[in-house]
Parts: sequence; C-alpha cells; structure tokens
Amino acid sequence: MSSPTIHGIIGYTITPFSADGARVDLDALGRSIDRLIDSGVQAIAPLGSTGEGAYLSDAEWDEVSAYSISKVAKRIPTIVSVSDLTTAKAVRRARFAEGQGADVVMVLPASYWKLSEAEILAHYAAIGDSIGVPIMLYNNPATSGTDMSVDLILRILKHVDNVTMVKESTGDIQRMHQLQRLSDGQVPFYNGCNPLALEAFAAGAKGWCTAAPNLIPQLNLGLYQAVLANDLNKARELFYRQLPLLDFILKGGLPATIKAGLRMTGLEAGDPRLPVFPLDQTARTQLSTLLATLR
Amino acid sequence: MSSPTIHGIIGYTITPFSADGARVDLDALGRSIDRLIDSGVQAIAPLGSTGEGAYLSDAEWDEVSAYSISKVAKRIPTIVSVSDLTTAKAVRRARFAEGQGADVVMVLPASYWKLSEAEILAHYAAIGDSIGVPIMLYNNPATSGTDMSVDLILRILKHVDNVTMVKESTGDIQRMHQLQRLSDGQVPFYNGCNPLALEAFAAGAKGWCTAAPNLIPQLNLGLYQAVLANDLNKARELFYRQLPLLDFILKGGLPATIKAGLRMTGLEAGDPRLPVFPLDQTARTQLSTLLATLR
Amino acid sequence: MSSPTIHGIIGYTITPFSADGARVDLDALGRSIDRLIDSGVQAIAPLGSTGEGAYLSDAEWDEVSAYSISKVAKRIPTIVSVSDLTTAKAVRRARFAEGQGADVVMVLPASYWKLSEAEILAHYAAIGDSIGVPIMLYNNPATSGTDMSVDLILRILKHVDNVTMVKESTGDIQRMHQLQRLSDGQVPFYNGCNPLALEAFAAGAKGWCTAAPNLIPQLNLGLYQAVLANDLNKARELFYRQLPLLDFILKGGLPATIKAGLRMTGLEAGDPRLPVFPLDQTARTQLSTLLATLR
Amino acid sequence: MSSPTIHGIIGYTITPFSADGARVDLDALGRSIDRLIDSGVQAIAPLGSTGEGAYLSDAEWDEVSAYSISKVAKRIPTIVSVSDLTTAKAVRRARFAEGQGADVVMVLPASYWKLSEAEILAHYAAIGDSIGVPIMLYNNPATSGTDMSVDLILRILKHVDNVTMVKESTGDIQRMHQLQRLSDGQVPFYNGCNPLALEAFAAGAKGWCTAAPNLIPQLNLGLYQAVLANDLNKARELFYRQLPLLDFILKGGLPATIKAGLRMTGLEAGDPRLPVFPLDQTARTQLSTLLATLR
Repeated sequence: MSSPTIHGIIGYTITPFSADGARVDLDALGRSIDRLIDSGVQAIAPLGSTGEGAYLSDAEWDEVSAYSISKVAKRIPTIVSVSDLTTAKAVRRARFAEGQGADVVMVLPASYWKLSEAEILAHYAAIGDSIGVPIMLYNNPATSGTDMSVDLILRILKHVDNVTMVKESTGDIQRMHQLQRLSDGQVPFYNGCNPLALEAFAAGAKGWCTAAPNLIPQLNLGLYQAVLANDLNKARELFYRQLPLLDFILKGGLPATIKAGLRMTGLEAGDPRLPVFPLDQTARTQLSTLLATLR
Repeated sequence: MSSPTIHGIIGYTITPFSADGARVDLDALGRSIDRLIDSGVQAIAPLGSTGEGAYLSDAEWDEVSAYSISKVAKRIPTIVSVSDLTTAKAVRRARFAEGQGADVVMVLPASYWKLSEAEILAHYAAIGDSIGVPIMLYNNPATSGTDMSVDLILRILKHVDNVTMVKESTGDIQRMHQLQRLSDGQVPFYNGCNPLALEAFAAGAKGWCTAAPNLIPQLNLGLYQAVLANDLNKARELFYRQLPLLDFILKGGLPATIKAGLRMTGLEAGDPRLPVFPLDQTARTQLSTLLATLR
Repeated sequence: MSSPTIHGIIGYTITPFSADGARVDLDALGRSIDRLIDSGVQAIAPLGSTGEGAYLSDAEWDEVSAYSISKVAKRIPTIVSVSDLTTAKAVRRARFAEGQGADVVMVLPASYWKLSEAEILAHYAAIGDSIGVPIMLYNNPATSGTDMSVDLILRILKHVDNVTMVKESTGDIQRMHQLQRLSDGQVPFYNGCNPLALEAFAAGAKGWCTAAPNLIPQLNLGLYQAVLANDLNKARELFYRQLPLLDFILKGGLPATIKAGLRMTGLEAGDPRLPVFPLDQTARTQLSTLLATLR
Repeated sequence: MSSPTIHGIIGYTITPFSADGARVDLDALGRSIDRLIDSGVQAIAPLGSTGEGAYLSDAEWDEVSAYSISKVAKRIPTIVSVSDLTTAKAVRRARFAEGQGADVVMVLPASYWKLSEAEILAHYAAIGDSIGVPIMLYNNPATSGTDMSVDLILRILKHVDNVTMVKESTGDIQRMHQLQRLSDGQVPFYNGCNPLALEAFAAGAKGWCTAAPNLIPQLNLGLYQAVLANDLNKARELFYRQLPLLDFILKGGLPATIKAGLRMTGLEAGDPRLPVFPLDQTARTQLSTLLATLR
C-alpha cells in the first residue's frame, strides 16, 4: 500500500489535565501541538506512552484523539497509538482514529497474558483488516511485556498488508541490524529509545519517535539534519550535548518529566495521573539546570 | 485489624462468556462457583488473572463482582481482585467490592509505567484508606511488570493497616523465606505459582491461590491436607501426581485451559477474549488425556 | 553400573593454606576432614568451589586430591571434583582421582567459551570413557557460565553409562521437578544451593552438597533426618533456624566464610587466595554472632 | 603515564596447534602475525579469547607470549592479554609480558568466584603496581562472569595509574555513552563486540578489538577509515557488507571460525582444543560462501 512518508523527528504529545486531574485540558493540548509543529518536527504522535493513553477512559481517549487530529489539520502526518488490551477494543480505536483523519495508527501488542506468536499475528491481522491506513508495528517489551522477534515482525509485515513500518524500542541495536539485513533494507524502521538516537540513525533508522522535542526540538532536529548531511562528527557532538536530558527523561519517566519541563517553559499541562507522581523538587531543580544549559 | 482467616485452597473463578463473546454468562459463572464451593475449597477469588479481569469493561467488571459475591453468599470468604491502571480506578473498584460484601480485596500494582517504591506505597495507602476490609498484596512481576522486593512489601504492610496478607507469584521460593525471616513468621503469605505448590507449603505458606480446583479439586485439597497432617511423603506423592496438569495450565494460559477443561466436564463457559486464543485441537487432546488420568 | 549409595549430607572441604598463602596445609586439611566425618556426614567432597579447586596449580591439585582420599580412607565415600577448562585436563584429573581411590568424580562443564550441547556431551563422554567410577554431573551456570537443560542432562545420562547422578545448583526447584518427572523418578539428584535445602528434600532430592557442616553439622544432619522421618514440621523448623547462616555463607562466599568460621572454632586454615578477600571485621562479627546462636 | 597511541583496528591472533593438538605451531603463528601486519592493522593482540589463552598450559602461554612479541618486533604495538584466575598468576604473566617487550597488557577480572568491587580494584592495583606498561581494562561479563559498572571502571582508572584504556564487550552501547559522559571524553575506550562496530565508532570508540582481520582486513580497515573521513554513509555501507561475517564468527565461536577461515585461505592453524569443536561441514560451507562474497 502507499504510505505517507514518515521520517525524521516524530514528536510525542503529552495529555494535559486540569489542576484537579479530573479533566483533559484541550486548550493546553492544542498549544503543545502548535509548539511542536512550529519547531519543525516531521510528524506528531498523540496518545503514546508519553500521552498516558493507558490511563484515560474510553471517552477521554476519543476526545484526545479527535481533537489532536483536527488540531494538526494535516500540516504534518498524525500517527495515533491505538493499542488496547483486547483485539475488539484496539479495532474500535483504530477505526475511530481513521475516521477522524489519522494518517497512520501505531499498535503495540499490549496484553495482560503473554501472547503466542499466532495470537499476536491474528491481533495485527484483525486491526489491519478493519482499516485502510498504514500501521506502524511497535515493539516495546518493557511496557507491553511481549518481545516480538525480528522473524515474527517480518512475518506480520508479510501477512498484513497495511503493517508497513516498525518502531523498535528494545534499545538493542542488533534488532535494527536484523531488520535491515533480513528485509534487504526494505522495511523502514524507527527508533523509540531516546539514548540510542545517534546509533539508530547510524544503523539506518528512518526516524526517531520521541517526546524530547517538547523541550529541546532544535537539538533533536539538528541531530537528524547532521545525519542527513552525512556529518557524523557533528551528529556525535549534538547527540552528546542532549544525552544528559535524554537520560533524565528516560529515568524520570516521560509524562512526569515532560510535563514538568513544559511548566518551566510556560505551558501548564497539569500533573500525571496517580499512581505516577509529578517530579519532586530535587528532580525539578536538575531538570531546570539541564534545560538552562541546552536552550 | 482483625482479618477473616484465609487459608488453604483459594479457588479462582473464570469469567464465562456467551458464545459470541459479547456478553458475560452469569448463569455459568454461578454454576462454576457452586462447583468450587461444593468441592471443598476454603475461599473463592473472582476477577483475577484467570477471570480475565483486565479484559472486561467497567460495567462488566461490576456485574461479575456483584454477582460473584452474592452467589458465594458468605458460605466461604470471597477475595476480589480490584487492580486497575490508575489509583482512582482501583479505589473505585475496591469500594464497589466492599460495598457488595467482599471479605478481602486483592491488589496488584498494575501499571503501564514502571513505578517507584514511593508511588507503589502511595497506591496501596490510597486504596487502604478508602476501604475497611483487609487487602491481600499481590506480587506478580510477570503480569504487572513491577517486582516488589520483600523490603518494600514489609514497608507497605507496616504503613498501611489493612494490608495484612501477601500473595507471592514470582515462583522464587527465597521470597517466601525472606517474608518468613524478616517478619518473624508474623506475615501470612500465599502461593500464586502452581508448580511451586509443594515447596511453598513446605516453606510455611498459609494457602495456595489457584485455578486448578476448577478441574482437580480433590488433588489440590489432598495436598493441603497432607501438609496439615505433617505427612511430607504423601504431600510429595500427591504433588507429583498433579504436576503435569499444573505445568499444562501454566504453559497453556489459565483462561484458555480452564475454560477448555470445564467444557470437557460439562460446564460450557465460552472462550477467552481475543487476542487470547482458545486451546487448539492438539492441546485439547493433551488436556483430555491428563484429566482422564487424574479424575 | 553399580554406584556407591550417595545420599544425605555431602560435606565439602576447604583447602587450607599456610599463613603466607604459598603452600597447602595438609595437616589442617586432615583435621577438617576428621571433623566432618566425626560429625556424621554421609560423604566427603574435596576440591569443589569451597575447596578453591580453580585456584590451585596442577601440582597442588594432585596433592590435595591424593591426600584427601587417603585421609578419608573409605570411612565414607569420597567425591572428587575434577572439572578443568579443557577436556584433556579434566580427563587427566579424573584418572588421577580414580587411581587414588575416589569413589565418585564430579564434573562441571567449565569452559571459557560457551559450549554447544554436542560439545558438552562429548566432554562428558570423553571423561566417562576414561574412568570406571561413577560421575556426578554438576549443573551450576553461576560459576560455569553454562546452563544445561534437563533435556540435555538426561541425554548425557543416557549416552554416558557412568554418569549416574546429578547435582543441581541453579536454585530453581522446577529443574528438580523436571528431573523427577522426565526420568520417572529414576535419576538421583542432589541439591547444591544451600538456601533451597528444605524444598529440595521436599521435592525428593537424595542429598545436599554443602560446606555448611564445617560449621553447623548437627543442624544440617538434623534437617536430613527429619525428612527421612517424614516430619515436615520439624524439618521446616530446623531449616529456618539454620537459614540465616546458609544465607550468610552464600552471600559472603564459601571459602572466605567457612575459613573464617573454622578459625573461630579453633581450626586455622589460612585465608582464601587473592583476588578473593578474607572476611572483613564487620562480617566476622556477624558470623561469630550467628555461630554463637546456633551451636 | 604516557601511553602508546592505541587506535583503529586491533587484530587478535589465534594460537595455532599441531595436527594432534598437543603442540603450539609457532611457525603458523608467525605467518598469521605477518599477514595481519601486512594487511595494515594498527595493533596486534595475542592470547585473547581468540587465542585460546585460557586453554594453554603456563609453559605454552609463555612460549606464545614471547614468540608473538618478538615476531611483531615493534612494527606496531603489541597488547598481551594476561588474565588469570588468581592475582598472583596474573601478576606473573603481566611481568613476563612486560619483560618480553609488550607495549600494553590487557586484564579481564577472570574469576571462579563472583568478586566484590573492592576485590576487583585490589586485583587491578596489584597488577598495576607490578609493571610499568599501561593496562587496558577489559569488561566482558559473558566470559568472565563479572560485569564492571562504569562507576567501578572509572574508580579503577583513578586509583591505578597505569590503567589508562577500557575495552568494552558487553555489547551495550550505553556503557560507552556513560564512559564518554562521566569522564568528559578523557577515557579512550575500545569496542570488543563485533556486531557493534559501526555504532561504537559512531559513539566515539578509539578502536575495535577484533579477530575479523584474520579473514577480511580490508573491510575492517575500510570501516575505520570511513569513520576517520567523517563519511557515515560509507561506514554504514561497509558495516552492513561485513555484518553477516561478523555475526557468523560471533555465533560460531572465534577460535573455531577463524581457524576454519584461515585454513580456507591457505594458512593451516589446526583445530581448537576440546571441548571446543572445529566447525562442522555445514558451517564450513556457509563460511566459505561468505568469504567468497567478501574477498
């Protein structure tokens, strides 16, 4: 199938909440989307891990999905994460997102039970059959509990027509090597592990899925442009400049650190939902110092 | 706080669905509960992993919870699993279950994001503060993604009054040794790993949380009684007799294997919800042979 | 082949060194062997991990092996660990030990390189073909780097006539279950993980390979006797009494803790060889307190 | 201390044996060294993993060490691996190698027992104090069983003057990032994981320790030169060309695959020592095909 060309810096949005945590703050969401697009990112991805998609009610999920897609308004592609615990629920979300105008949907095989390869394949096939837009397969055993081998991933791509892209978040660069080797370079893969950004591009990743451009878009985009310009030395220098922040947001948790950072830069997005804590004072001071150095 | 005395074989219920998977079959649920109680189990636990609690809508969860508690009708204690992804949702479920008459609620720190120890403690404290019945803390990193150390578990027990029992499902017997040693034998712990049943009782577990009594209650109860009678040789012999089935249901997945086994014994409970598959023909034949040997 | 009946408490000896560490102190070795036999252990095992076998020169290894066997003098069986990095060296040690009168040799597939299953099988076959006494196969991935599956172990037992016993030190009780199930209870297995002593006996282990009887033989033997007497409650009570010491020697390292403990009880055996440190003052105080409680 | 400048492709030598495996074949060793130097590698490393150093007697080790150093004859630097199981033996080897003219010695904290950080530090200090040439610290938990954290590594570098370089073989690129960040780029690090060659250079590694130049020196050197020329696209292209061979020699084991490959190119170096097998026919055919494609 013909895919939109997804490449470069794919910016993940947070989901802002009202001060009491009870309500989604759509106005703040809109401003965060505008900021990302104005900074120059190549695509927008709502409702991922950063967006606390797993912590929303179905009604909230629909609200955020519809609003985000209409706010982006095709300025750049929108990639909506539609993962859910049952196949029926994931299909419903995928159809909803497509109906609202999503360009791509992203699917992590989230499950309570450990799934067999046949169950994972059937899950992707059911979602693929129910929509017409491309699917980015997402492998992230740390959050899903399911680690898909490269063999399985390539089998899914072969059997389900509209699964055409792979987001790899194991942090193991050898998975990207295998994707490249075993597909003869035909499968576009995207990196979802922030501290692997330099090496993933070195290995041929087409893009970097990251929440960091909410805080340091110019450094993220600069790294990508240095790679496009075949300037390894500059890419390395830019990567090491931003690495302390990338390590910090990984260690502190994406919703907590990105929301704290947005607040420091004038965009109030509320706190993460419990049981996730907002950053404590020590961490806020560290983040503030890091941002002051980088901006 | 004064706890009901929870001990022995704690039987987990499945959640039966209608043939098309769309509806909970309460009548079949009622019959499965009666079977368990008639066989002699010491407690009933609805909505655990076996009960596909994670795959139900909130309305379905409430329906199954209320029906199960009223069906048990205090013949034996009911322990309702109330885990949910946010603290607010878990609190709501705990209150609902208490309101319907649950004797104990069970809480797994389910989360999408990896939680810090402080976040886990606050999660238990929020639930504990909202209800008056005892809580069984449940540690199962394979499904929750969060492994609570024995130190953390004991800290939670100390800080939250109504967390009074521990269900351990890591499969690592040393955790039970540490619970016993570090609490001077004061914390009742329960085993949630089927193939560890013999050794958990040897190490002093007060009970065994298991879905197996849906299929082989007399063997499960016999093992417990041999331990109570201080007859290690008989306990060992009964354990090795049932081990092939315990290994089978662990490997095949609890909802799929228990539902298939119930169907073989005349209780139609439907299939698991997708993405989980029902047992295939080969596995059904194996299960049928195993059951024929054991019953 | 007909095997000597190996069962019960199999006591591991340390290798005492002179004060400057340069020389083996055979006199102290002899006294430690007499102590173990006088306390009632069912077998003696020199040159295991506890005996710093890996840290001896070939000449020292031969000296300790010959002396130990002649000192035991058939009062009880002697099991000599003959593992070495190449097959040729392990064969030489096995022949030497047999020539000196060893009743059994123990073989861990020690290797620098990760070995394939075929390489491991050939290693055991070469040793088995070169001697006439039985071999106890030893699985301990933590020290050898090689984890033999139960399938592989049973294949080795089938192909190499004189491999007739298995020492399991993974600490995973399920391995013992599998050995029992897949061999229909025909393969005698021995536990090499101290904090698993109670559960291994519960699961049917024939013996416990341990350095602990250098310090607390009556507790070790008492546990075994309680199991023989089918008294689970007494076995559990004795196990929890000795568990703090078992945990301590595992955590502190066997040569360092056993040598420190022997010194406290009047048997000077020198220090471990560097890079392994002797116990520091804090640990010696802990050990002294533990021993005072238990003896 | 002033170090020789170690950089680029550091070629590991095999240790050739006579046809019966009993004797080191020094003539073949000399030819393999000349081949490596003639191909253009920047340094030579005898007696590493590839050189089966762990499988040699002390006399053989001395023979190979002395011969290799004298054969290189200062044409390029020689880095001798002197790891041994006790501190005393490692010190002896380090002194011997220095006496024969080694430019650098490499030390892996090989141990049977798991070492504490203090024990590892003392081990390096004892070796460092006994010699005057620089030490390359080598971290490879897969073979040594000991994983040194970046914090520990930097502490060793601070406390032991002549530990000045780090060879990292965990395969985890984040270790290199940490070495770079925490040392402000002051610690030269070298990559020891073949399939990480591209990314290690991208992350700033000074060199690549590898046995591959025995077979495909021009591709290894070409990758390094592309990195020096800041040509990421060419480096990536050259890396993916050689990756199938790098994966093959990692999977097949270095001594077996390199010796088989040398034989195919006219240099008879015998077989690895048992328990390690030579390549079987299927693997030899694969290797032959791979080499035909690449040379």
